[in-house]
Formats: sequence, structure tokens, C-alpha cells
Amino acid sequence: MSNPSSDVRSIGVDVGGTKVLGVALGPTGAVVDTFRVPTPQVSDVDAGRPVGTSVADAVAHVVSTLATRTGLERGHCALGLGVPGMVAFDGTLVFAPNLHGAIGANIATLVAERLGRRSVAIDNDANCAAVAEHHFGAARGVDHALLLTLGTGIGGAAIVNGVLLRGANGFAGEFGHLMVDRFGPECPCGAKGCLERFASGAGLRHLAEVAQSQGRLDVEAAKSPEALFAAASSGHVEALAVVEEFCWWLAQGIANLAACFDPQLVVLGGGVIEGQQLILEPTARHLASAIEGGALRQPPMLAPTALGPEAGAVGAAILGERAKP
Amino acid sequence: MSNPSSDVRSIGVDVGGTKVLGVALGPTGAVVDTFRVPTPQVSDVDAGRPVGTSVADAVAHVVSTLATRTGLERGHCALGLGVPGMVAFDGTLVFAPNLHGAIGANIATLVAERLGRRSVAIDNDANCAAVAEHHFGAARGVDHALLLTLGTGIGGAAIVNGVLLRGANGFAGEFGHLMVDRFGPECPCGAKGCLERFASGAGLRHLAEVAQSQGRLDVEAAKSPEALFAAASSGHVEALAVVEEFCWWLAQGIANLAACFDPQLVVLGGGVIEGQQLILEPTARHLASAIEGGALRQPPMLAPTALGPEAGAVGAAILGERAKP
Repeated sequence: MSNPSSDVRSIGVDVGGTKVLGVALGPTGAVVDTFRVPTPQVSDVDAGRPVGTSVADAVAHVVSTLATRTGLERGHCALGLGVPGMVAFDGTLVFAPNLHGAIGANIATLVAERLGRRSVAIDNDANCAAVAEHHFGAARGVDHALLLTLGTGIGGAAIVNGVLLRGANGFAGEFGHLMVDRFGPECPCGAKGCLERFASGAGLRHLAEVAQSQGRLDVEAAKSPEALFAAASSGHVEALAVVEEFCWWLAQGIANLAACFDPQLVVLGGGVIEGQQLILEPTARHLASAIEGGALRQPPMLAPTALGPEAGAVGAAILGERAKP
Repeated sequence: MSNPSSDVRSIGVDVGGTKVLGVALGPTGAVVDTFRVPTPQVSDVDAGRPVGTSVADAVAHVVSTLATRTGLERGHCALGLGVPGMVAFDGTLVFAPNLHGAIGANIATLVAERLGRRSVAIDNDANCAAVAEHHFGAARGVDHALLLTLGTGIGGAAIVNGVLLRGANGFAGEFGHLMVDRFGPECPCGAKGCLERFASGAGLRHLAEVAQSQGRLDVEAAKSPEALFAAASSGHVEALAVVEEFCWWLAQGIANLAACFDPQLVVLGGGVIEGQQLILEPTARHLASAIEGGALRQPPMLAPTALGPEAGAVGAAILGERAKP
């Protein structure tokens, strides 16, 4: 709460698989206040409630709390939501492997009802983060940029010609589900060998487990991504090799995306790699050889997220401002 | 030559790996005249000439011939070129596996010099074809459409928000070089397991050869894509199985592109599949299960090219018209 609350212009809420994070945003993109609650892990349908009810209740609680604390009108202020999955233009969450209990719900409508509002802006969480990075962060002023958020899965979004790409149905930017290995492990999405089986938090776990089962990594370092990075950072050669493999896959994914979009910049964020010093250099190195025509062109630049774990909520707030009549 | 030559507005030239095809275009997209010559297969450098010289000579000859025949001024008419490879915004052919001898040349500048012109519009051949299909063909009025041209390799292009996507350097739409099988066969581009190793003319050859070597296909049907399609069309079960496999790969590629772009429509063309009745239905079937959230959404529609093998030249002519001051 570095700024006086009178500076607050909007509220953004990022609904994740584990937490609901709200931010109150000032005019220059400063996060003036934050509030979070755990994401409800109950089945509304089993409890006899319309699907999405408990998530919408949690979001409304976060918004109400932030509005009260910052002096905004919760029924009228600029408000946007980011949700993890494929969001149709009417706001329906069509597909969401990490928010299964809310598939089919129109969370924006449910939240609007609870707050006495006419409407609430909503988009995919990575789309929101890309808007934030383009507006205030690492992709400011860049007309062709991609964002990859490496968490449990991979969130993705594309800025093309200076504008967020939403596609024909709002489903553009699902980069985690590019098939990169037809014989690869099964993905919760139902397909096999998706990029996020290799280049996400779950992917890093998978690579570490395989290395451990093949005797290439000790049990301690294979326990979690955190343990692996800790071992690698202290020079553990086997752990470094797994990180290298992770970066190889990430580079292959980025090379595929570069073949599609030809971006100038790729912004990398997400809990798995945030703050990690070990990712960018090897990924850039593998990318330079994976990209088509690599010897004859510059690959896209790689940059860490500037806004960190709040990027999604900040972008949701920006979408709320844009949607305001 | 169905229209009088006074209707001709522009000339477009599609430089392919084997032929240089020029069209004279009327105002409604009608091809009023065509002229083609073989693509020169000589090394300019070995012959002591600047790289690209012989290709530029061939293009200039095609343009001059069409201009004379249709009464256009070759030095001033709207003129555009399509070339097979990655074209930088300044017109340089940066990378071109199928026009190796012209890599590094600025063919547009060389052609302009030969014709006494100030400039010539130039873009990737598949980009040109997409512009043509969007303007006059299968993607008319569609804001989010992709084009895949299945020839020896795969040409690709994306229309997003109603506009051709060129990307940061002009290299967007290189769909043939999406890696889909990390252990797949080597590609002339230098990588492994690119989509065009499976879902192009060369890919079909590869699939047929593998099937034949495993005793799943007789030698006759494995001889060429044409022989394979002929056998499949007459009900040859083993040939049909290889076509099915081809369509499976094509669907995986389209599913990857749908994850990126969320198109409403994918236009399929190119010598390998043009006129084939056996491709669209199985590809659409595999796509419905390959696409993320397939059970909960509509996959993009698939449509054959409306403009056929002249699409690239027609699109080049349109780019020429747009570039004209």
C-alpha cells in the first residue's frame, strides 16, 4: 500500500488453481493493495449449487474486500477477471484442466450478480498477464511478443501487431498443448506429448523422475523443482543436466511458436522459473539452433516477466478499465 | 484469356522451386493471362554472377511477356512477387530450402532494375496465396484463417484480425517447421521431426516408404503420392491406411496451429492434395479428437483452396496493387 487509495483506478482478480489473487491498481500500473483467498476445492454440482458458485463467491469476497479497503465502488469500479482455461467471448469457461470444477460456468456473470454490477470483464489468465506485460512490463512497446507462464502447466498468449490475439473463439495462445512428441507422456488435456509435459513445473518433475529412474539423478534432487534448482545452483552436475534438458524442451516449444508468430520477444514467467538464473541462457542457446534458419537470422529475445506473479491480476484490471463504458 | 486485356490491373509472379508462374489479374480476381518458365537451376555464384541473377532474369522475362500481351506498362504496372522462403521486410530472401541458389538475394530489387521500375512488392509464396484466398477465395470475409499449401514441403500463412500476419521480421507462418516428433526424420531445414516430414508431399513419400519397408504396402502403391492416391481411391486397404496416417499427422499439425491461433477456417491446398477427395474427411475426424477441449468446442472448418495452383501468383498481384503509390 505505497500509494494513497484515492489513486486506485481498478481491481483485477486472477483465479488460479490454488488461490484467488486480487489487486487494486493505480494509474501507472502500481499495485496499491492485494488480497488473496484459497481457491474453493468443492464440487458445486455435488452440493446442489450451480457450477461456478463457490469460485464466484470467493472472487466476490476478494473484490468486496479490496473495494472497501481502497474506497472503490464494488458495483461500478473497473473490474476484470483472469481464469485458467479457454474462455469464450460470452465469458463461459469452456475448458480448464486446472479449474475442473468451474467448467461450463460463466464466472463473470456470477460475479456480476453477486456485486450488483452490469458486467465484469473476463479473459484467460495468461492473456491477462500478456496485456499487463505489454502495457507496463517487459513487452512495453513491442508489437510482436509472446508470453509463456510456466506453472503446473503452461499459460500462453500472443501480442500481434500490438494487440492481444484472441482468435475466432477466444481460445488463441494455448501454447502448453502444442504436441511436440507424438510418443510422449499423456497430458490431462487428453492428448499425448504436449509441450507442457516437458517445459512446465509438471514437466520438470517428469524429467527429474525419468532421470532418477535411469540413475542419472539422486532421489533428493528429484524430489521437487525447488530441490532440483537448488542442487543445480550449487553446481550439482546431474541436476544441471536435467535443467539443461528442460531448457532444451522449452527452446523447442519457443522455436515452434517462432515459426508461427515470428515474435520479437518472448516473455517467460511463472512459479517454476521465476527468479531462476539458470533458465534464460541455456534456453536462448538451444533456441538459436532450434529455430528455422538459425544461422541466418536473429532468434527472438527472451526476457523474464517484469510484473511477476501479479501480472495476471494486473492485466485483468487493465481489461476491466478498457471494458468500462 | 476470358476477359479483354484492358481489364488487366496487375501482374503477379510466383517463383517456385521448379517453375516461375506469372498471372495477369483482372479487377475481380479473374486470371486474364498466364505465362510460365522453368526456374533456372544454375549457380549464379559459380558462374561469376551476383546471387539471384538468373531467377531475376526469369521473372523479368515472365513480367515482360505478360505486360506486352496485356498492354500493361512493365515499368509502372502493379507488380508483386511470391518466393518460397523467409523474406525479410527489405525483400531479402533470408532462408529458402527449395530455392537454395537465391538465398541472400533481394530478388525484388534485381527484378526492379531489369524492368526499369522503382520497386516491386515481394512476400513469401504462401503469404501471397493466403492474401488471395482471403481476398477472392475460400477465406473471403474470414477474420481468423490459416492456409497450408502441401507441396514438396509445407507453405503456411495466417490471417489474424482480418490481416496477413507477417511478424517482427516477415517470417511468420512457417508451419512446415513445427517440430512434432523429436525423434522424427531429419528435415532439410536442419532440424528433426518437422511437420513437413509427415504432412507434405515428401512426408507422404516417407510414410509410404516406411509402410512398404514394414510390409504394409506393396511397391507399386509406394512409388509416388500419385500412385498411392490412385490405389487408395480404388479401395486398396493398405494405401488407404497410409492416407489415413498422413491425415492423422496433418490433423496434429492443424491442432497445434489451432492451439496458437484459434482460427475459424483452415484452407488446404498444394499439389499433393489438390483435387483429392480422400483428405478432408479423415483430417477433420482426427482434428476433432486432436484439438484441445475437442469434446467441448467446434474445431476450425477445413476447406480446399478456391484458387488452386495460381493462388500464390494471384496474391502477389494483389500485394502489388496494394503497394502501388
